[in-house]
Amino acid sequence: MAYISQQSSVTPVPVRIGLIGSGWMGAFHAESVARRVPGAALAAIADPNIESAQNLALQLGTAKVTASAEDIFADPEIDAVVIASPARFHSPLIAQAAAAGKHVFCEKPAGQSLAELDAALAAVEQAGVHFQIGFNRRYADGFRAAKEDLAAGAAGTPQLLRSLTRDPGTGSIPNAARVPAWTIFLETLIHDFDTLNWFNEGAEPTEVYAVADALVEPSLRDQGFLDTAVVTIRYSNGAIAVAEANFSALYGYDVRGEVFGSKGMVQAGRTTETEARRYTAEGLSADTPRLNVELFRQAYTDELADFAASVRAKRDGGTSPSSDITLTPGAADARRALAMALACIESVKSGAPVAVAEKAAV
Amino acid sequence: MAYISQQSSVTPVPVRIGLIGSGWMGAFHAESVARRVPGAALAAIADPNIESAQNLALQLGTAKVTASAEDIFADPEIDAVVIASPARFHSPLIAQAAAAGKHVFCEKPAGQSLAELDAALAAVEQAGVHFQIGFNRRYADGFRAAKEDLAAGAAGTPQLLRSLTRDPGTGSIPNAARVPAWTIFLETLIHDFDTLNWFNEGAEPTEVYAVADALVEPSLRDQGFLDTAVVTIRYSNGAIAVAEANFSALYGYDVRGEVFGSKGMVQAGRTTETEARRYTAEGLSADTPRLNVELFRQAYTDELADFAASVRAKRDGGTSPSSDITLTPGAADARRALAMALACIESVKSGAPVAVAEKAAV
Amino acid sequence: MAYISQQSSVTPVPVRIGLIGSGWMGAFHAESVARRVPGAALAAIADPNIESAQNLALQLGTAKVTASAEDIFADPEIDAVVIASPARFHSPLIAQAAAAGKHVFCEKPAGQSLAELDAALAAVEQAGVHFQIGFNRRYADGFRAAKEDLAAGAAGTPQLLRSLTRDPGTGSIPNAARVPAWTIFLETLIHDFDTLNWFNEGAEPTEVYAVADALVEPSLRDQGFLDTAVVTIRYSNGAIAVAEANFSALYGYDVRGEVFGSKGMVQAGRTTETEARRYTAEGLSADTPRLNVELFRQAYTDELADFAASVRAKRDGGTSPSSDITLTPGAADARRALAMALACIESVKSGAPVAVAEKAAV
Amino acid sequence: MAYISQQSSVTPVPVRIGLIGSGWMGAFHAESVARRVPGAALAAIADPNIESAQNLALQLGTAKVTASAEDIFADPEIDAVVIASPARFHSPLIAQAAAAGKHVFCEKPAGQSLAELDAALAAVEQAGVHFQIGFNRRYADGFRAAKEDLAAGAAGTPQLLRSLTRDPGTGSIPNAARVPAWTIFLETLIHDFDTLNWFNEGAEPTEVYAVADALVEPSLRDQGFLDTAVVTIRYSNGAIAVAEANFSALYGYDVRGEVFGSKGMVQAGRTTETEARRYTAEGLSADTPRLNVELFRQAYTDELADFAASVRAKRDGGTSPSSDITLTPGAADARRALAMALACIESVKSGAPVAVAEKAAV
Repeated sequence: MAYISQQSSVTPVPVRIGLIGSGWMGAFHAESVARRVPGAALAAIADPNIESAQNLALQLGTAKVTASAEDIFADPEIDAVVIASPARFHSPLIAQAAAAGKHVFCEKPAGQSLAELDAALAAVEQAGVHFQIGFNRRYADGFRAAKEDLAAGAAGTPQLLRSLTRDPGTGSIPNAARVPAWTIFLETLIHDFDTLNWFNEGAEPTEVYAVADALVEPSLRDQGFLDTAVVTIRYSNGAIAVAEANFSALYGYDVRGEVFGSKGMVQAGRTTETEARRYTAEGLSADTPRLNVELFRQAYTDELADFAASVRAKRDGGTSPSSDITLTPGAADARRALAMALACIESVKSGAPVAVAEKAAV
Repeated sequence: MAYISQQSSVTPVPVRIGLIGSGWMGAFHAESVARRVPGAALAAIADPNIESAQNLALQLGTAKVTASAEDIFADPEIDAVVIASPARFHSPLIAQAAAAGKHVFCEKPAGQSLAELDAALAAVEQAGVHFQIGFNRRYADGFRAAKEDLAAGAAGTPQLLRSLTRDPGTGSIPNAARVPAWTIFLETLIHDFDTLNWFNEGAEPTEVYAVADALVEPSLRDQGFLDTAVVTIRYSNGAIAVAEANFSALYGYDVRGEVFGSKGMVQAGRTTETEARRYTAEGLSADTPRLNVELFRQAYTDELADFAASVRAKRDGGTSPSSDITLTPGAADARRALAMALACIESVKSGAPVAVAEKAAV
Repeated sequence: MAYISQQSSVTPVPVRIGLIGSGWMGAFHAESVARRVPGAALAAIADPNIESAQNLALQLGTAKVTASAEDIFADPEIDAVVIASPARFHSPLIAQAAAAGKHVFCEKPAGQSLAELDAALAAVEQAGVHFQIGFNRRYADGFRAAKEDLAAGAAGTPQLLRSLTRDPGTGSIPNAARVPAWTIFLETLIHDFDTLNWFNEGAEPTEVYAVADALVEPSLRDQGFLDTAVVTIRYSNGAIAVAEANFSALYGYDVRGEVFGSKGMVQAGRTTETEARRYTAEGLSADTPRLNVELFRQAYTDELADFAASVRAKRDGGTSPSSDITLTPGAADARRALAMALACIESVKSGAPVAVAEKAAV
Repeated sequence: MAYISQQSSVTPVPVRIGLIGSGWMGAFHAESVARRVPGAALAAIADPNIESAQNLALQLGTAKVTASAEDIFADPEIDAVVIASPARFHSPLIAQAAAAGKHVFCEKPAGQSLAELDAALAAVEQAGVHFQIGFNRRYADGFRAAKEDLAAGAAGTPQLLRSLTRDPGTGSIPNAARVPAWTIFLETLIHDFDTLNWFNEGAEPTEVYAVADALVEPSLRDQGFLDTAVVTIRYSNGAIAVAEANFSALYGYDVRGEVFGSKGMVQAGRTTETEARRYTAEGLSADTPRLNVELFRQAYTDELADFAASVRAKRDGGTSPSSDITLTPGAADARRALAMALACIESVKSGAPVAVAEKAAV
């Protein structure tokens, strides 16, 4: 063999991540960390459903498995956690992780009341750890490009904004999705709220008026499960925004944003895969994207890559990732969007507009 | 000459139309009648501004000119009138025309209060004349095609609807446009209300919540001139609709509609002329349509052609024009949309949702 | 009656047009002249099939009918003719019409050999009448907008051009369409040749290489009926163009153009009606335009309006219609495109590239 | 610590790949292997320019570096090679690699004459190693979806095909790109030839007619450097195809495909990033993709993932990757496309159509 002696290439220690919650979303994040995020490693998986955790670990070659997140917090070989548990545990887990000195990536919503979220964010603040919330749309090509256009002034001062989410479905709501009553605001529209806040950066949401109903599955109306909602939002700069959601789009996952302002309009997102188009005797047809992990696959990877880079910078003393635009969603973004979702719930209950402020628990 | 003797081709008497109001819109309708609508003739023009009427008559070769609409009502050679006066005269003129036995095409809004409109529509009813309101979007290719798709069930039961109007502008509001305070609801969004009602045919609007502001020209806010508005509408079938308007789109006239339902989504309208596209070092660019009479030229012609055909059928005893879909907007459509606009004004004043019902005058 | 005495509005005498040939295309032109072209009147119809002429006259209220075009040429009340006879009569009819002092609009091709066309054009030249050839695509919004972009330099110097025509069909060739062997070049691709020449204005076509086959209806290959063709064209400025045609597009009429050059690309035409879009469980779908008279309805009207305006200017001494771009296709355009079609026929016969020059008859 | 003892997760040995050639393309492939292809490892880099190899190795953490590909062929720890050397070494390197029992991924073209390629492919055949050619477009989402549509019969029997490549540029040809005279056929259009062959699967190309010129940089014409070309291709099933290329599209990388047939049309590729759209006073604008590694990033990864999976199956005895459509481009594909490119060169030289057959060296 005549290979030339290679200079020692000191590969940096990867960011060692512990996953908390190995459900559908957690499993997808784990796969991203293990296979698609450079400089990161999936070091451990915690889930009370230990079998679920073990299966995922086996599939991804992860060494450590536990039923208790405590083990991960106590593990000195873990740098950071990805929290993908049920939403009701998010705020407590953020607080515990921060107290243990772990950097935190948490799925949305970061909490279910402003009180518990404030406690968690105070722990983050005190520990000085990095905190990121899973508003992945900021990382989607189209939304990021739109944000760049907006930052460059393409639309001028925003006057009218729109963000919509239509989840893929079959025209009825499966049992599994039925449990949490206010899911449409706390888990779905919270994405749209963040998009609108981000697109209208510098302004604060001041008032919401929300209308919601069970139109996909009217039989669930009595149990409080709402599948369709429209929210009008006033901002401190006068801009008026509309957020809209529905849980059963037969044509697949549909996420779009639009900002109209004094100079023009910027649009993000699309419902068509324009990549391949068919023209037949029936006219034009084309496929539409079906799942969020199809449409936003790259965004899911990029948000974790940004997280890993931020953690590495904190851990190793380097520079944080930077961008021409505001990108990484953090504590203030998590809180602002939650406050809007909570105000929406109150608005639906009262049938009147509600100021966005220090809301109490649900 | 050896021309063969042609069978007598009895050309039918055209529908003889009198124009009331020779302003911008009236002049355009006059030109349509005189030049683009088969089987119709522009027989007379009335305008208190007699010079305006004379200029238009000269241009179009119209024989009769008058300062008073009374002359047109009294003229036995006139079959029908096109009312394009200022909106505050619409209801009285409808009532007078009907009383004189003239068929009526009236620009929107048909009145400024439900009381005056009801009086006018009662006169129409009693006289048995044809009445049509100028909701021209129903005749635009894209909207008509969307309606056909909806009638065929492409979207299933409507759950979420959207209609928007952005008038072309330059970023500020010209003086001439400043006078009427509630123009955005009574003259602009009333189009969107009709589109939504038509797309959601069979359901009644039950409640509106309107937010409006002077964002294009904040200096006019104190005078009550609002240039930006968003309206949330509840329908009797549960559907939730959003109508949106702004008076100054720098990229030109932007009118779009969208219906999402249990089976899918149908979209109408577009902001791009896709006819010619440029790809240069700056990327893709294309022209956008600027004026309503550009984007909807064919729709403006077709609504008058439909009107002329309906009048001819009434006058000559033939059959009325028919269509697979509900097309011609009439008395109930004019009243329903006006009731919504009036409820919106009340909602802006009160800051609360308002039921759509028997509203009093503005 | 109190109508004000109107100033005498001297309506100008319309351009009085005689139609020669009342087949499908002729009937459509007749309807345009009678109903859609301002300032023009359909004065007479000539067709050896007198019944066809009479039916059309009855439908459009035309007074004069004849079996012989001679009557039209001899009629002093006729200003101009629209020639829509079978193509083999075009050149002789042009010559006769010009000799009789009639202005001429002729459907393409203007002749079947350069010799006969040159004789006809010499008669036009000598009589000083206006001559226009039916290259209607120049008047289609998208193509005209593309031409304006090209004239403004959007694509720089053309390097690669493409024009295609796919006629609507059902997958087989009807009997009626089978007769003329070289139709694909003489009647179809001649449109594309003109588009390419117009888009690459200032350059001359120097060489063509044509490949053609009977792919839709292979059984007709032996009778010389070709339904599919691709032509490569060299221009004097170095640009390379491709023209493509097929007689049976199941999705409808498809006409597109593309110019790529030193500065970028300009595209014209589209295969989708983007006006209404459906999203269902099957994905995106939209209607496509089917017939040339659907897709190019406005272009067919505008070419005749341009013709009428040119004739009026010649007759009444006014100014001819003008445009920022070269628009009206005339004698040189008719000849250039025909020379290309004839060279293509020779290229198919020889299987080799052929110079575009003084070609003999077919 | 209370981590549960994890079942031994036997991570399979990754496919160990040696890179030959660390230029621009090689470096990109190396990065894909090292970072984006699951189950693959970049084990060694060979480049006569040892500094280039060392820099790349340092960046990617690759252990072994050599100036000679021989070292890689001799290394028992290497399973497969990626050949990204200058094209003139491709065939000899394929032969050597195969003789050493290494599986081969080779950038296009696989050779410069059919003779040398045949020798290389014979070595591959004899060694029984896996061979894949770098026709990456097959793995691009849009092209793959189009192929699936075609395989499902969406276009019926192909009659007209088109494939085009426009490389991004600035309007002039940089020095570095000027050297190889027939690059446009051997390195660029060879992609389009494969796309057309793949889309028209089952038919053989029988004849080509090529026109080429130096239109971007006319000063290089004398040196034989051609930057613009159009090729007409006849297929054994009668279909007629056009391939088109240019080396300087100011708007970026433009790769599109279109198949028209007896049932309809399928289109692949797009020139617009539709993800974010701007509407301003100037009309619509949007960004266009610039580089091949932007537009086809995922395709470049997926072709190597497919390669790694095939190699793993051969090495470990598992099943090869499978697909509903013909996907992996192999020996016959490499040879067919090369034969077309060589016939094109002959066609340009002779100015006549040339049969695609057993061509000799350039």
